[in-house]
Amino acid sequence: MTVEVVSIGSELLRGFTIDTNAAFIGRELFERGYEVSRHITIPDDPSHLDKELRACLARSSMIIATGGLGPTMDDCTRNVAADLFGSGFRFDETTAANLAKRYGPNFPTIRDQATVPEKATLLPNTIGTAPGLVFSKDNKWLILLPGVPQEMKPMFLHHVLPLLGKIIPKQHVVSARYIHFCLMGEHELDPCMRNWKEKNPELDLGIYPSYGTLTLYIHTPNEQVLNGIVREIDEKFKTYLLPFGVRQNEEAIYAWLKENRKTLSIAESCTGGRIASKLTAIPGISHVFLGGFVVYSNALKQEILGVSEETLKKNGAVSAPTVKEMISGIFARTDADFGMAISGIAGPTGGSEGKPIGTVFIALGKRGEEPQVIEHHFEGERETIIEKAANVALGSFWHKIAYPEAK
Amino acid sequence: MTVEVVSIGSELLRGFTIDTNAAFIGRELFERGYEVSRHITIPDDPSHLDKELRACLARSSMIIATGGLGPTMDDCTRNVAADLFGSGFRFDETTAANLAKRYGPNFPTIRDQATVPEKATLLPNTIGTAPGLVFSKDNKWLILLPGVPQEMKPMFLHHVLPLLGKIIPKQHVVSARYIHFCLMGEHELDPCMRNWKEKNPELDLGIYPSYGTLTLYIHTPNEQVLNGIVREIDEKFKTYLLPFGVRQNEEAIYAWLKENRKTLSIAESCTGGRIASKLTAIPGISHVFLGGFVVYSNALKQEILGVSEETLKKNGAVSAPTVKEMISGIFARTDADFGMAISGIAGPTGGSEGKPIGTVFIALGKRGEEPQVIEHHFEGERETIIEKAANVALGSFWHKIAYPEAK
Repeated sequence: MTVEVVSIGSELLRGFTIDTNAAFIGRELFERGYEVSRHITIPDDPSHLDKELRACLARSSMIIATGGLGPTMDDCTRNVAADLFGSGFRFDETTAANLAKRYGPNFPTIRDQATVPEKATLLPNTIGTAPGLVFSKDNKWLILLPGVPQEMKPMFLHHVLPLLGKIIPKQHVVSARYIHFCLMGEHELDPCMRNWKEKNPELDLGIYPSYGTLTLYIHTPNEQVLNGIVREIDEKFKTYLLPFGVRQNEEAIYAWLKENRKTLSIAESCTGGRIASKLTAIPGISHVFLGGFVVYSNALKQEILGVSEETLKKNGAVSAPTVKEMISGIFARTDADFGMAISGIAGPTGGSEGKPIGTVFIALGKRGEEPQVIEHHFEGERETIIEKAANVALGSFWHKIAYPEAK
Repeated sequence: MTVEVVSIGSELLRGFTIDTNAAFIGRELFERGYEVSRHITIPDDPSHLDKELRACLARSSMIIATGGLGPTMDDCTRNVAADLFGSGFRFDETTAANLAKRYGPNFPTIRDQATVPEKATLLPNTIGTAPGLVFSKDNKWLILLPGVPQEMKPMFLHHVLPLLGKIIPKQHVVSARYIHFCLMGEHELDPCMRNWKEKNPELDLGIYPSYGTLTLYIHTPNEQVLNGIVREIDEKFKTYLLPFGVRQNEEAIYAWLKENRKTLSIAESCTGGRIASKLTAIPGISHVFLGGFVVYSNALKQEILGVSEETLKKNGAVSAPTVKEMISGIFARTDADFGMAISGIAGPTGGSEGKPIGTVFIALGKRGEEPQVIEHHFEGERETIIEKAANVALGSFWHKIAYPEAK
């Protein structure tokens, strides 16, 4: 039994919207033991949609589709699917009453959104207006979900996953391992992976690099082989391992600060709020993250953090002395136990021969101790440099607090 | 002649990576007059890949694929494609010399990455190691690009687009219009769209909402109809229109501040750096954006911005008086001409009956004038509330500076 994911919407093919639904569904399924065999994106066009959905149903037994359920004129998924399953339409009083309660009785799309295919089971939408629809015939399933991620996600988690659990068997052992590393390169792990695979050809390995982190997926029916590999990783790469179950450097930082009852404040120049923004994405972070300073201009570096004019003149804003003084400013202006400061050249202009675009200085500080400064040279465009710098800064900070003795 | 986009990689289907390549390629093509007819994502598995690429080539004349070109053991795209086009391999001295120059002569994957299919034309990779590959036979084209976005993008822009321009005719008129709105809902435009479509059935319309902005796409071969619609929009929605060619609220803010030689500084609580981060993503922003304060804790609101303890006690951190005092703090601490302050409850905890999760106060200030405060109630999870609040704040700020007289 195979699962296919279908994204419906011309805005996806035309690149106006980045599809995050397919990855969300893929990951939730994978971590519960299901594999998505393929994913396809098709336009909001009735004849295209009809042809592609027929092909999907011929090939696979479970199709999960998102998008095209809304009330606007280009949404056609509901009609095409009803046709495919030979279904008429009915007016659903419950849906209508619920929409009237949430949006008022004169909300213009109530009649449209409460008119649903007779043969479909409805999945309630607690955030938006379009209910999800489940069709099935001859052991083939077509599940239609809204395209707006915040409507789709709760519907998928609360209704689709329980349904799948009843109708399709898991495709792989869920006890497979994911191992998340901080600040490690693919090439450091590749020789080990080749070695494991040579000894155990049945091994299923995947390596998923991201800026500042790396995820290794290991799956084998042989528990002993798995444990052996995990032990080897633990010995060789101990100080690079994020805590069990933690995927991102900022989550690891949050967990450590919370456990050790310490606080952090930061000062960002080139990353311009990106690091603060990643930290504040974590629920509960306000207990350990006091806030920070986006000292983009030199004036703010001086006025708010007290970086001296002499330091800026002599060394420039992108230099070790400047980030060190930014750390001093953090400790002077806040009560934080730890501080992190970053300054660099994100481009596209501002580089020089001595300090090319991509040069970034990161200072990691603990109150009462001399801060540690790291210099990096990142490649890429402005956005890439900012994203790399933010993730590497977070990784370096976690590494420093979790393994203060490691190099 | 149709174009298909193929994304190759198990990490995409398993949801470890969100595919941004397909949207990038789709948008670049669309804005140059090409339509992507479908997009498919398939795993790094030689037999799957072979089968799917054969089906693509049977259906379409131009296949643009990303991913699976790297040196690690799960990358198999190069071999599968060479087989499909009956090509052997050769060692490319130029690629090898270039890699040796950039990574040193002992870089482990030089031999592997410089071994390329004989029948393919190479596209140089200036950022990473894997060259792009172009295969063609009987008027069918298969273009293979690296999966890492910062390697793929320059290769696509500098090599693939010029090639396409030579071999396939444009599929639609490029003079079609995109109109970008600030802070307008889909439902406000939908009645107009139905009306236009009724009068001009040949009209091709698309509506692409995003948080805080909305894009309308209009295409018709009839120039007069197009001009009439554009005039109607201009009259009805003038104060909602972003400047011509500008897609995002922060770009509009940058353009306005630069033209009027004014500066901005901000103070963020619930958005925790998200607004600063969006502003600093814009190249050149340092001329108008001085920086900001992520005053996540009450202590920082008091110490850095001078918000009074009494205000915080009496009204709470999420209140109109607090964001007003944050604005005063911005003007006291910086030389900025304009200020923006935001405080809210992003959840998942912290809500109350009077101030549920999603309550957000935004203050917009001009030095010397009384700030304007707007209250919002956003729905969704933490990430959604933060993203909506940041975009709506940026939109409101732009609206205020560009149309100070509008309500």
